[in-house]
Amino acid sequence: MKQKKATSTNRVNPQPATGDRHPPNSWKTLSSNEKYSNPWIQVTEYQVLNPAGKPGIYGKVHFRNKAIGIVALDKKLNTWLVGQFRFALNEWSWEIPEGGGPLKTNVLTSAKRELKEETGLTAKKWKLIQRVHLSNSVSDEEGFIFLAEDLSEGSSYREDSEADMKVWKLPFKKALKMVLEGEITDSLSVVGILRVAKLLEE
Amino acid sequence: MKQKKATSTNRVNPQPATGDRHPPNSWKTLSSNEKYSNPWIQVTEYQVLNPAGKPGIYGKVHFRNKAIGIVALDKKLNTWLVGQFRFALNEWSWEIPEGGGPLKTNVLTSAKRELKEETGLTAKKWKLIQRVHLSNSVSDEEGFIFLAEDLSEGSSYREDSEADMKVWKLPFKKALKMVLEGEITDSLSVVGILRVAKLLEE
Repeated sequence: MKQKKATSTNRVNPQPATGDRHPPNSWKTLSSNEKYSNPWIQVTEYQVLNPAGKPGIYGKVHFRNKAIGIVALDKKLNTWLVGQFRFALNEWSWEIPEGGGPLKTNVLTSAKRELKEETGLTAKKWKLIQRVHLSNSVSDEEGFIFLAEDLSEGSSYREDSEADMKVWKLPFKKALKMVLEGEITDSLSVVGILRVAKLLEE
Repeated sequence: MKQKKATSTNRVNPQPATGDRHPPNSWKTLSSNEKYSNPWIQVTEYQVLNPAGKPGIYGKVHFRNKAIGIVALDKKLNTWLVGQFRFALNEWSWEIPEGGGPLKTNVLTSAKRELKEETGLTAKKWKLIQRVHLSNSVSDEEGFIFLAEDLSEGSSYREDSEADMKVWKLPFKKALKMVLEGEITDSLSVVGILRVAKLLEE
């Protein structure tokens, strides 16, 4: 945040032509070093020339899984939230059912597995409603959010890291209220619930 | 994803009492080791006992800044997008104006600075519209999204890492369409734009 240059607002382009909207990569990578790796993430430091041509470093977190989230909606417009203590935040979090799906696995296959594992639900109707990049200043984590309908209830199968998980069936309206009032903060959940609220208006 | 145990859906709690909704931390930390650090992130590996009491590791990415995003809205319901090549994604991304704010700096102060730096805009009316945790399976990154109104245009001051940045003033409706059609994927932007769409309905 130190080296800055003044630029005038004549860069504001009221309606860029499509061809002009995706300029080429303006970062140059000189070298890279893996700094940390575990089954979920890989951290690499790159020596770069930034878009102004100046040398610097970029620490990137590569995710070994896609983030998969599911908004389940029954005929009475109930949805399912999952609560768990999030280690990285050091706090409890209510969220839509979600989890990691291997990069090479079809995202719908992962979504069906996650929903069943965490809530016991199976769904006959699936729709991909949003793709998001969760934290693009540092990571390449890609999230896929589905709407699951035409539901049947059954048994769930949790992972050990999810042994404290709680499941809550509640009116979708109440979940939306929790987003609007800041009680749900997980980004995949906020996006999924706001997106389904928009779909329900259409 | 290997060790699982079957649980019945009788854990589904139709309406948990408030006191029951935030159980205590079910992770135990045994030790920790810093694995990587730069001015933006710190990566630490923790030896833990997971919620089932089994030993394991947890790699956590601590962010040294808060993520700040701003949806700017003028009287004619235009908004401003910022486009840049995202190194971590290796692709171009259209987003709401956003950037990092130091952890100890007031988020509104950071939001005013970011909006001015990237777009040249100043705003007389500010509202915090959403707080999000961007990637809580791995990081503690916290995002704050503001709605900025009653705008004045001026000069912008970009950082060197933003030398390729493009600014685009466009109808808010068009930005919303870009979210709904998957052309905007940055999570802070998707949340901000969907949230403002909801506010505009009220």
